[in-house]
Parts: sequence; structure tokens; C-alpha cells
Amino acid sequence: MLTRIEQARKGDLSDEIRAVAKAEGTVPQELSEKLARGEVVVTRNRRRADLRPLGIGTNLRIKVNANLGTSRDALDIEREIRKARAALEAGADTVMDLSTGGNLADIRRRIMEAAPLPLGTVPVYEAAARAMDRGSSFCEMTEDDLFAVIAEHLGSGVDFITVHCGVTLRTLELMERQGRLLDVVSRGGALLIAWMRYHERENPLYAQFDRLLELAHEADATLSLGDGFRPGATADATDRAQIHELILLGELQARALEQGVQVMIEGPGHVPLDQIQANVLLEKRLCRNAPFYVLGPLATDRAPGYDHITGAIGGALAGWAGADFLCYVTPAEHLGLPDEEDVRAGVIASRIAAAAAELARGRPEALEREREMSRCRKALDWEGMYRFALDPQRARKVRGKAPPGDESVCSMCGEFCAVKIQRERKRPGRQTP
Amino acid sequence: MLTRIEQARKGDLSDEIRAVAKAEGTVPQELSEKLARGEVVVTRNRRRADLRPLGIGTNLRIKVNANLGTSRDALDIEREIRKARAALEAGADTVMDLSTGGNLADIRRRIMEAAPLPLGTVPVYEAAARAMDRGSSFCEMTEDDLFAVIAEHLGSGVDFITVHCGVTLRTLELMERQGRLLDVVSRGGALLIAWMRYHERENPLYAQFDRLLELAHEADATLSLGDGFRPGATADATDRAQIHELILLGELQARALEQGVQVMIEGPGHVPLDQIQANVLLEKRLCRNAPFYVLGPLATDRAPGYDHITGAIGGALAGWAGADFLCYVTPAEHLGLPDEEDVRAGVIASRIAAAAAELARGRPEALEREREMSRCRKALDWEGMYRFALDPQRARKVRGKAPPGDESVCSMCGEFCAVKIQRERKRPGRQTP
Repeated sequence: MLTRIEQARKGDLSDEIRAVAKAEGTVPQELSEKLARGEVVVTRNRRRADLRPLGIGTNLRIKVNANLGTSRDALDIEREIRKARAALEAGADTVMDLSTGGNLADIRRRIMEAAPLPLGTVPVYEAAARAMDRGSSFCEMTEDDLFAVIAEHLGSGVDFITVHCGVTLRTLELMERQGRLLDVVSRGGALLIAWMRYHERENPLYAQFDRLLELAHEADATLSLGDGFRPGATADATDRAQIHELILLGELQARALEQGVQVMIEGPGHVPLDQIQANVLLEKRLCRNAPFYVLGPLATDRAPGYDHITGAIGGALAGWAGADFLCYVTPAEHLGLPDEEDVRAGVIASRIAAAAAELARGRPEALEREREMSRCRKALDWEGMYRFALDPQRARKVRGKAPPGDESVCSMCGEFCAVKIQRERKRPGRQTP
Repeated sequence: MLTRIEQARKGDLSDEIRAVAKAEGTVPQELSEKLARGEVVVTRNRRRADLRPLGIGTNLRIKVNANLGTSRDALDIEREIRKARAALEAGADTVMDLSTGGNLADIRRRIMEAAPLPLGTVPVYEAAARAMDRGSSFCEMTEDDLFAVIAEHLGSGVDFITVHCGVTLRTLELMERQGRLLDVVSRGGALLIAWMRYHERENPLYAQFDRLLELAHEADATLSLGDGFRPGATADATDRAQIHELILLGELQARALEQGVQVMIEGPGHVPLDQIQANVLLEKRLCRNAPFYVLGPLATDRAPGYDHITGAIGGALAGWAGADFLCYVTPAEHLGLPDEEDVRAGVIASRIAAAAAELARGRPEALEREREMSRCRKALDWEGMYRFALDPQRARKVRGKAPPGDESVCSMCGEFCAVKIQRERKRPGRQTP
């Protein structure tokens, strides 16, 4: 069965492509060409016919992902379902189920039901968790175990999977020779490195990349090539290991495209503001404009409890520079498993970053929405302001907390409202004050 | 009596200059020269001998201001005092009392007591409020009324005052000819424009600028030249009125320096990300590197309820580009008078922006603090992480909300903690897993 890329190469314009082009306000033919070149992915597993397909990539609307999932410390499935609903309500475009504790297939299925959005997973977590559930070290996971989990995930309808294919012995050597303040902070990366060290073998996701491509091809799923060497400290950003891994991901992306498999590239992480633009440029050059999926990036390490804000700062800059897909970071990052409120805060912060980035890129819809909001402000049209707000509920609630004496303004300036003063005194010349 | 600038020109190094230089990790002589050139201000009213003087400007640590104050709708003084304490605790460097309702002199004095930080005010608010308290329109405020309030504020120890001196008939004409989506959103600007239209006269703060300089000279206070024409919509950013006003402020700054009076320049406002760097550059060029004090800037108009985040995005970029002083924006902006929680959220968000900006500028202290935080992360030293966090209390609270099973990690990844995995498996080669 042909994948989307193979169809696009034949010049077929599927209903799916037309639907995505319509949602993005672009031309189907153009979208199809970008998909064939690997500059855009349309993510939907072949098995999820009822899911709305989502386009991610060059010149499309910037998308936002919310990470969900239990940890082995926090097994409450119902909470994860509530978090999935919160992500959907807050406007996430995709969710990832990163669960490592409990009945993972069951959790995955329930998240898919609760949030009908493209779903991503990181199969190595489940492969490692299964080994641990057997009472052994996760290092006892076999290569076949790992590919079996990947096949199961894709078979159960997962739309995109993170695979840390650039975590190789050579990249590891580069990191060790250069030295890092915080080594590896990617969970999947750390698991694979421990496995590689234990077995003294190459990462199977790299060594057997073709096996991965076959599985992805069958499901027409998207490979999200993970950055196991992403910096976990701003001091480690843009180092040899990180950039070498990106070079490898660029090579693998080219191989995937040849086989008709869609690819996104994952990016950092903790990156000072002055390096973000270069990081986006490097990805776009080394990976031939493949969609760039960044985590944050966090513009400082010093704000635990507020990493949705440090992530929004970095994400806005990355999005402006060309990143296509922002993975949210919640206020709980670095401190604990997020709850519903954290999920909501994380999604909104990333959507703010995306809005700021799209405005800076001059996207026509973004410009128009900014104008609409300002027109409502000028008219003191509060219902209109709520309508154009990224989070109408919150805006309404904050205004309600400190109600104004005069309903036309807000309690910040009251009768000294600049907008009101001008409305009343617009006409030049002397007049009754 | 000589002002700081006059002393600096004579080559005198006061204890004050030495204290500020020490706090900033710089050389007194260099600081003094920057002060003489107007690139740095040291803000402390002559009458506040017990206040710690604060340096703001080129290559100093980026400072954060918190706006406080009643409105005529919300007169609760006790709340404003609690907000002042919250600003202090959250790490604000200065506060501004923007009160327009209640006994304004009393509120000002009590805020000074509650938060021993440099205090700024906007005297035109009080002048307008007094006219209204007399039962007339604020347009009935006389020029002498306005200067009397300025004298009173400076006489009562106010360290810096916002004066919208660039709001002139010519700037207004430029705005009206070009047209704007949202006209003027500065409260002070709107009051002055209404007054100018009503009286068909030039703005007294411009026409009688020398009178202002005399008052500032006497108190050795800092003039913060306000941007009455700052854009209130991203669509209005960097327009003719805004830039013409900035040109005027540059001229006035030169006149102030000649008279030995310290000046800061206030900046926008609502500015798309792609225009922020240019805005900072323009200020630095047109105003000879005068300290730049920006409000936000807000990188999108579409996030009412979250303008601390949109302001942190813009503030980080502005700070990186060279802005010296960030005025916080709270989550209540555009919706209502902020409460204590809003103040705290606003101060922290601006401090995050400042931290990200200082890291991007490569400030040695910023680099070192990032490294310290990362060292603590690697060591899983939670107390250390709290110590280097911008808000230790919040970090502790968030981790406590979802306590981990294993105290060495956090509940996000639990036993799959990448840092922990590496610590345990660092040694290469086969080993018991």
C-alpha cells in the first residue's frame, strides 16, 4: 500500500491532502509537493480513519504538542485522562503519551478516546518498562523486544513515534570527549545509552533503521527522530554531540524519504536566546527543511516552577526563526509529574509563543487576528476581546475578579481609561469637558 | 547643591557610586563616566538617605519594576501595601505608585515604607485626580497644578517620575495623519492630549521642560521620559508618532544632561518580535545610550489573562538587544487591577526575561548561575536547585505537590530519571545492571 509520500510523488491529490491544505489556507498541489520533499508531514496512522489529519511543517500554522502519561511513581490513569481532556480544551494540536507505569496499551487507548488528536509515543519507554516488569534491568530488553513494541504501537494506531536514532556510539564518544555539565537528559537517550554500554553494541534504532522504516511504512506513521543528546543545560547547548546527532538525523531523514516514510526532527531543549536562531537554521539546512519539533526551548535554567514561561520565550524565538512544532513545557517540568492545571498552563504558554512567532513571521491570519483584538479593545467590546483571546475563559475570569465600577472599562484604570478618554474627547477644539 | 552628574563631571567618586559599582561588579570610575554621559542613572532622591541607591543602564544588571496603586474604582490601600510587599519579596528592583484614588500622599508614603526600593510616580495622574476631586473635568487642571504636584512628589522623596514630555501637538498631528488602530493607550498620554485639545495649547511638560529640570535638579531625581505614543496594538508598533516622540525624547535627554539631570527613556508597549531589536537600537541611537525602560514589550495582543507571559517573551528579546529596565506586566493587564498574586507572577515573569536576556548577553554572573543550577541538577541536589531558582518557594511547592517515590528524583520520570540512570551506569563496559 502506498504511503502519502509515494502518492504525492505519483501526483495524486488525496482527500486528506485537500483537507489539510484547506485547514492551512494553502494550495493542495503545493502542500503535496512539500510533503514529497519532506518539508511537511501529514500525521495520521493508516488505522485511524476517523481522525482529522494534521499537517506540520514549512509555512504551515505552528502546532503545539502536550505530553501526557503516567510515571512508575504516579499511576493514576484517570488523572491522565483528565489531563488529555484539558490539553484538548486548551487547544493542543497533538498529544504524546509518555506513560511508563500501569497498563500501557490500555492508557494509550483511553487517551486516544479522550483527546481525538494525533497521538505520539516513545516506544523505548514501554520496552524498558516491560523488562523491569519482568523483574530485570531495563538493559535486559532485547532488540526484538524494542521492535515488537514499535510494531504494537503503530498497529494500535499511534500516529507518530519518537525514535532516538541518532544516539550512536560515535555521538556518545563525542559527548564524552568534549564533556558536558549535564550529560544526557533525554529519558529515551539515557535508556539507550545505558543499554549500549551494557551490551557494548550500537543502538538498534540506528543499526536497524531499515527495520524501523518498514514498520513506519506499513502504518504510514511519522517518525519523529528524537534528540537524545539535546542539551539539558544552557551551558551544554549547541555542542559537538548535539550537532553530530543532528547530522545523523539529516542522513536518516534522507533514507526515510527514499522509502516513502515521513519524518520530523526533534530539537532542544535548554538553549540561550542568542543560539536559538542558529539551531533552527542548522536543522533546516542539515535536514533539508524537515519539520522541526522543538522542546521549549528553555531560555534559562533558573526558573523551575515556571518552565512554561522559559519555554514560551524560547519557543517564540524558535517559531519566528522557522520551527514548526512546539512541544509544551509545563510549570512542573524538572520538579514533578504535571497535573491538569499544569497541562492547561503549558498548552496556553506554547500557543502564546506560536501566536507571537506567527505574527513576527507576518502570517496573514495572525496579523488579522491581532487587528481584530485591537478593534475590540478600541470599541471597549469585552465580548469581542474574549472571543479573540487565546483563552477566553481565563480572560473573563480575570476581569470578573476585579470588577470595574463602570462596565465599559476595566478596574485597572477605571475612569482614567485611555481608550475611554479618547472616545469622549476625540473632537478637536474646546468643548464641554 | 550638585547633582550626581555634576559630581561625576568634576571627577568626584561618591560613596554612592562606589556602592552601586560594587553591587554591579563594575569599576567606580567607569560607572561614574557612564553616569556623566547619561548611559547610566543612579536613582535615589536626595531626601532618601537611608535608601540603597540603584544603578540602571548600559551593561548593568537588568532591573525589574512593579507597578502598584489604587484606581478610582479600587481604593483599598491595604491591598496596595500587600502588593508592595509581594513585589519586594518576589525580587522587584523598583516600584511605581500609579494611584489615582484615595489619599495619594498617604498611599505613597506607606508604599515607600512597605517596600524600601526606589519609587517612581506619574504626577499627572494626581494633578488630574485633584481636578476631578474638585468636581471638575481633569482638563481643568492648570499648568501650575501640574508642576505643584511634581514638586510635591519630588519633595516627598520620589526617586523617579514619569513625565510624558514628548506628547506634543506635532506628534499628535503625525498620529492623526497616519491613523492608528488603537490611538493612545498611555493613561498619562491620553490625559495630556485631552488637556491639549481642550486648551488648544502645547503640553506644559514639553513647553516648560526647563521648569521640570529645575525641580528634578533640586531633588537629584531621575526623569523617566514617558512614551505617551507607545503602541497599544502590535499593528501600531514603530509608527511615525512613536518614533517622532522618541526623537523628541532624545533631544530632551540632551538638554537634561546639560543641566545635570538624569534621564531614562520609556519604551513600548505592544511590539511584534521582529521589531523589538530595531526599537532598542533606535532608542540607543536617538537617545545616546540613555537607559531604556520598556513596558513588556508584549509580543502579541491575543493573550489577555497571560500578559505576564507575552511581556516576558518581549522583555527577554528587548533585554538581549540592550534594554536596561523592564516594567512588569501582570496577568491582569487589560482586564483589571492586579492583586497580590498577579504582582508576584508579574515580577517573576520579568525576572525570568531578565535572566534569559543576561544569559544571551553573556553576562558572567548569569553564566555562572546557570552553571550552578545545572551542577545541582546533575547532583540531584534539590536544596541546591531551590537555592539557585528565581523563586525557591514555588519550586519547592511544585515538587511537593507530586512527591516522588524515590526522594533522589522527581515524579516526572521517577526511576526513569535520565540523570539517575547515568549516575548509576556511568562506568563503561558490562556490569550488573
